[in-house]
Amino acid sequence: MTRFNQFSIIDKTFDEKLADLAGLRFKFDTQLESKRNLKNWLLTAPVDLTTLAATDRETLWDFLHSDTPLTWDIFYAIGLQLLDFVANFEFSLSDSLTFASDLHLPTVDLTQDTSSEHVISAIYLLMLSRRKNAMTLVEFWVSEGLLPLDNHYHFFNDKSLATFDTAQTLTREFVYVESPVDTERRGDYDLIKVEIIRPQFDGKLPVIMTASPYHLGTNDLANDQKLHDMAVPLTQKPLGFIEITDADDTVDSFPNYDKKPVPMAKNNQAQGHFTHGWTYSLNDYFLARGFASIYVASVGTRGSDGFMTSGDYQQIAGVTAVIDWLNGRARAFTSRKKTHELTADWATGHVVMTGKSYLGTLAYGAATTGVSGLDVIIAEAGITSWYDYYRENGLVRSPGGYPGEDLDVLAELTYSRNLDAADFLTGNATYQKQLADMTTQLDRASGDYNSYWHARNYLPNADKVTADVIIVHGMQDFNVTAQHAFKFWHALPQHVVKHAFLHQGSHVYINNWQSIDFSETINAYLTAKLLENPLSLDLPPVIWQENGAYQSFKTLDNFGATNISESPLGFEGEFASFDNHYDDQTFDGYSRDFRRFKTDLFAGKANAAVIDINVPEDSIINGQIVLNLRIKLNDTKGILSAQILDYGSKKRLNDAPGTLALKAIDLGRNFAYDDVKDLALTEMPYKVVTKGFMNLQNRQNLLEINSVTPDEWLKVEMRLEPTIYQLHENDTLRLLIYSTDFEHTVRDNRDVTYTLNLEKSRLYVPKESGESK
Amino acid sequence: MTRFNQFSIIDKTFDEKLADLAGLRFKFDTQLESKRNLKNWLLTAPVDLTTLAATDRETLWDFLHSDTPLTWDIFYAIGLQLLDFVANFEFSLSDSLTFASDLHLPTVDLTQDTSSEHVISAIYLLMLSRRKNAMTLVEFWVSEGLLPLDNHYHFFNDKSLATFDTAQTLTREFVYVESPVDTERRGDYDLIKVEIIRPQFDGKLPVIMTASPYHLGTNDLANDQKLHDMAVPLTQKPLGFIEITDADDTVDSFPNYDKKPVPMAKNNQAQGHFTHGWTYSLNDYFLARGFASIYVASVGTRGSDGFMTSGDYQQIAGVTAVIDWLNGRARAFTSRKKTHELTADWATGHVVMTGKSYLGTLAYGAATTGVSGLDVIIAEAGITSWYDYYRENGLVRSPGGYPGEDLDVLAELTYSRNLDAADFLTGNATYQKQLADMTTQLDRASGDYNSYWHARNYLPNADKVTADVIIVHGMQDFNVTAQHAFKFWHALPQHVVKHAFLHQGSHVYINNWQSIDFSETINAYLTAKLLENPLSLDLPPVIWQENGAYQSFKTLDNFGATNISESPLGFEGEFASFDNHYDDQTFDGYSRDFRRFKTDLFAGKANAAVIDINVPEDSIINGQIVLNLRIKLNDTKGILSAQILDYGSKKRLNDAPGTLALKAIDLGRNFAYDDVKDLALTEMPYKVVTKGFMNLQNRQNLLEINSVTPDEWLKVEMRLEPTIYQLHENDTLRLLIYSTDFEHTVRDNRDVTYTLNLEKSRLYVPKESGESK
Repeated sequence: MTRFNQFSIIDKTFDEKLADLAGLRFKFDTQLESKRNLKNWLLTAPVDLTTLAATDRETLWDFLHSDTPLTWDIFYAIGLQLLDFVANFEFSLSDSLTFASDLHLPTVDLTQDTSSEHVISAIYLLMLSRRKNAMTLVEFWVSEGLLPLDNHYHFFNDKSLATFDTAQTLTREFVYVESPVDTERRGDYDLIKVEIIRPQFDGKLPVIMTASPYHLGTNDLANDQKLHDMAVPLTQKPLGFIEITDADDTVDSFPNYDKKPVPMAKNNQAQGHFTHGWTYSLNDYFLARGFASIYVASVGTRGSDGFMTSGDYQQIAGVTAVIDWLNGRARAFTSRKKTHELTADWATGHVVMTGKSYLGTLAYGAATTGVSGLDVIIAEAGITSWYDYYRENGLVRSPGGYPGEDLDVLAELTYSRNLDAADFLTGNATYQKQLADMTTQLDRASGDYNSYWHARNYLPNADKVTADVIIVHGMQDFNVTAQHAFKFWHALPQHVVKHAFLHQGSHVYINNWQSIDFSETINAYLTAKLLENPLSLDLPPVIWQENGAYQSFKTLDNFGATNISESPLGFEGEFASFDNHYDDQTFDGYSRDFRRFKTDLFAGKANAAVIDINVPEDSIINGQIVLNLRIKLNDTKGILSAQILDYGSKKRLNDAPGTLALKAIDLGRNFAYDDVKDLALTEMPYKVVTKGFMNLQNRQNLLEINSVTPDEWLKVEMRLEPTIYQLHENDTLRLLIYSTDFEHTVRDNRDVTYTLNLEKSRLYVPKESGESK
Repeated sequence: MTRFNQFSIIDKTFDEKLADLAGLRFKFDTQLESKRNLKNWLLTAPVDLTTLAATDRETLWDFLHSDTPLTWDIFYAIGLQLLDFVANFEFSLSDSLTFASDLHLPTVDLTQDTSSEHVISAIYLLMLSRRKNAMTLVEFWVSEGLLPLDNHYHFFNDKSLATFDTAQTLTREFVYVESPVDTERRGDYDLIKVEIIRPQFDGKLPVIMTASPYHLGTNDLANDQKLHDMAVPLTQKPLGFIEITDADDTVDSFPNYDKKPVPMAKNNQAQGHFTHGWTYSLNDYFLARGFASIYVASVGTRGSDGFMTSGDYQQIAGVTAVIDWLNGRARAFTSRKKTHELTADWATGHVVMTGKSYLGTLAYGAATTGVSGLDVIIAEAGITSWYDYYRENGLVRSPGGYPGEDLDVLAELTYSRNLDAADFLTGNATYQKQLADMTTQLDRASGDYNSYWHARNYLPNADKVTADVIIVHGMQDFNVTAQHAFKFWHALPQHVVKHAFLHQGSHVYINNWQSIDFSETINAYLTAKLLENPLSLDLPPVIWQENGAYQSFKTLDNFGATNISESPLGFEGEFASFDNHYDDQTFDGYSRDFRRFKTDLFAGKANAAVIDINVPEDSIINGQIVLNLRIKLNDTKGILSAQILDYGSKKRLNDAPGTLALKAIDLGRNFAYDDVKDLALTEMPYKVVTKGFMNLQNRQNLLEINSVTPDEWLKVEMRLEPTIYQLHENDTLRLLIYSTDFEHTVRDNRDVTYTLNLEKSRLYVPKESGESK
């Protein structure tokens, strides 16, 4: 059954509750009896009271006119109906409290009497509770018309309500912001096309900004043609150390051109207006609540200037320039011809960045510039170092599900200027040259870290972050893996405020899930930070989804436990070995469909050492499992892959959310509907807990290339992807150690045999010592 | 690649084209050279001309200012970009005509010169062509703001354009229509809650009405509890003839109560207004084009009175009452208390009914009442006889995918009055009694046709139909099977205008498919019929989707060919036999998951006679294949099931549409987005062509129960589901003849052996003699 996990509810005094309710035109009088207060509230609410029942015998209408006393059972029987749960079928009217408790409905202390004060507090909590459709009762009632669309802020429990018109009076305009970069070295600053959607408001508005290179279109055909062949043998690398030079695209090296002053636009009005376009549901949610929405695709995209530099600080400067403009520190023009300038006179300058994947990536990147005005980032499944996305430990390692992709492929996808045939005509020749350079620089042959990748690593700049950081990441995300979140979390200086929502999904967002009030929590956060109110929300550092339970979230103090348990992989004298080579038919089959390989691997049918480890007691893994292996192979180079499964048939969460109700969430007032989703709990034979990959020549550290001497024992330490994962006594962890991985690594088919000394190999597991709350 | 099939384009004279274009403010002058006319058009269009190219060397801007002559290659190079195809990647600028031809783009005669008249005609056709996102260019430009939202009709090529505001000024109200029935025998007419969504307009509006018992909620929990056990043996039925008595719920027996006059509502205004609710995308499309939308759930649903009579003419009277009200022949009240009456003074009285599945069913049903004002029905995958949905040839036969369902289960699902706890309290006891009666009447034990089912068969009343009938049905729909459409098609009297869109999908709708301009075609049809314009559209009787090609639709004159080819199932002396019984483990496995049974059956691994038939030449099956079998079994009763597969691995269409682009279709002006979908062509091992089921006791005809004498040869003729299916020379048809079907029939596990005399058994296949166009 449904189970709510609400983190957005803020404790208030009784007087504050009364004031909040009065703001919605609900008047109460504690001198009246509680049943009278309940009745007054219901009569004012946008509810058809004739459809409800109070008990098994009385309709609500009869109850309100009878002598039957108000009990908590009756209160919550009515309340659950208001939350859209079906009496007599989903819950029993005579036992509403059991259902409310199973539902994790926030309730008052039920041992208290049903005095007016207690009932009013219960009403207040009920208004803050989620309905089955994943909107809180107050949000639903506002969408039904409880408050007028007056284009003014209204707050309830310190969260902004949907009282801004998103239809008739909405402005949708675009401007061209002058960035500080010249990515094509044309001798002029790249202009960046920026789409603005903002409600009408007398004062100034804060901004929810999403930076997405996909926003104005993607070139999927070019992407597919650029994909790299994975069926290449592993390269032998010359020994030595890698030196990193700072890229010449850092802020210090940005050009310093003369800026020709131009006249201001008449009435400071934008010239370009747009009608259609992709929007992000979290931004739409805030649009109706008095936050302007800005979409920016940055350099090399449709309508903007420049090259697609793919993740470096030039691309990020094309994003932060918009924040600079919103704060009066950069210019914007009404057209690409730069005839007239205009200012963001409607903006407060306060900005939050949002978005998933590449969008979250640019939020991380922007935060590491320390740009002023960026108050908060909500980075969902973002990349914090591009090397960690396309490489691992000196190895070309494709993101899960995308073999053959690389940063130049992604450049082809996102260089959307080529979608405009006129821009193709004038710009493609230059672009192709720059793209060829990029293909050289990213050095697929070695898989090594270098200056190119260093320029796309935001972690060394984490000390510059001033924004609050809210991370959302899936523990089952093997596309943008959890290490991105984990490393950023730990790279942030102590003084930066940080929070993480760590769910058990894959590369997905959680803002339309039934079980957790993500949007409302973010609402409380941004209402405070961006509207300059005190932050009254008490948000735990880590909110973590239980992997073995339906709709259950708990809290932790940190991502990564310090308590490490150590276990050997085998008994005295125990060895294991596996080959790298497959016969042609198997190799071709796995190459054509890596899912087949995974099925065989997990079933113990592929080339791999399979080590099953019994879990001695209930525990929670929190952080990075480390494998310490004693290994030898009969070759001078080798791939090392490892995966750990939670093995054995049981109910586990799916990693992709399923749809519970179509278009049931109204993000405003009949505006931008969202589906209600959640992860279903289903029987499955196993689940991946973590994995890791390594080029054995890079086994000491990333910047050192070592030799592999055939048949000589090597000591290898490999850190696997971080996770938070609950295990129970007598669960089985299946450790798979192998070489070529058809999803992730190059498909090397040389005849190599690996041997493991299990006795001398160790597994280090970081374990949560306390109880998760 | 993409391939358009447009049926909505209406031939016009050159002057009519000019007038249509002038209506969009595009002015042309045939005295000017064609390039100048092209330029004027582009300058007026809502397009950023600076992004386009004309050739491999010239941008559009340069071309318009150069001496380069206008050729058809250049015209369509520009045109394809306007349709959102990507130059240089999807098509070559130097060879646009090849792409246009592969795309099936409607073009002018390209052997003509590019005179102004020809170019203007080409522009006109281009405006009517679909863009990649499945909106025509004119529809897309209107959604971009080409015409103001003036709440007046604007037509282009005899189709209404989206010029009605669907935001600010939209009315959403509900009223209670007085039906002519009293389904609970309360002594009063059942009131029916009706939701109306209508744009503001000075005159009167036509209505797109959807009748859906699901509209105001469904009781899924009650449904699941009511499901019938399928693991029951087949019943032996007493011999005899079934007599049908006319039901007492026909129009003749409707009650005749006094109608107490009540005062009119002030200003004839509705009292109830609603904000949220499910809508149907075709209706939303028409809302923006000046057609009011009405949703009605009829008797037994949330907010209405009565019992859920499930498919009889009382339920349909609850729907047609709304049409009566729209035409001034019935009353409606502002509230359930019936204090004030109101009239539909905003309505012309012209109505079309739309919707899929149960919704299409009620459209069929309403049409068979001959109710005046119902001009057209668009019945998508509708049921035309409920017996044919839950029974077949004297056998309980569940619809595909829904074993255990029956009409009483569907009553539980749709009796949404029980979702309101107050109504449950007062109404459930009566409801349960009526439901128990229904369970008795539908007689699962025998599976026979009877008066209950006869009252839910619309086919005998097809002679009363006056509306034009537009049928949409999937040839792969084994939920509501194609026989429903086929039988209605043939039951209609000659004078009724009928059209059918027969696609290769399953139980799906086609109005958001990329390949066919369904919505525009319906627009042309309804703009004529409902707005009292002459019907200029030349719509073929049958539009049929090719089963073996991507995005290809052809036309036929009829559903059902008269040319029958006959072939024996075997050689002289050839027999086949199969058992009914499975061991417990297999039986349980198939029962738990009928998909396993299907996989085994189709692979020839289940209990079945498997007969592979070589297809001697290219042919198109059109209609019902008939099996004439000589069969015997060692029992006195038996199930006979048959399926025919198109067997062997090749590319075939999926039966469920996949998403090509999310929310890319704007149904109005930033209103109600729809995804672009289509059936993908994928490699698959086989495809079901048709199937059929029979109780051998009903082998003569439905109303006659015969005996089965053990080990005596029976002659059995079984008509299978109709289809239109193209076969090629040397294709293999796999005929499967068997007994228990775990998806469709009761799961009878008796020990029975069937023997077939293949020599004396025949397959009759109706074949299209002419070429499909």
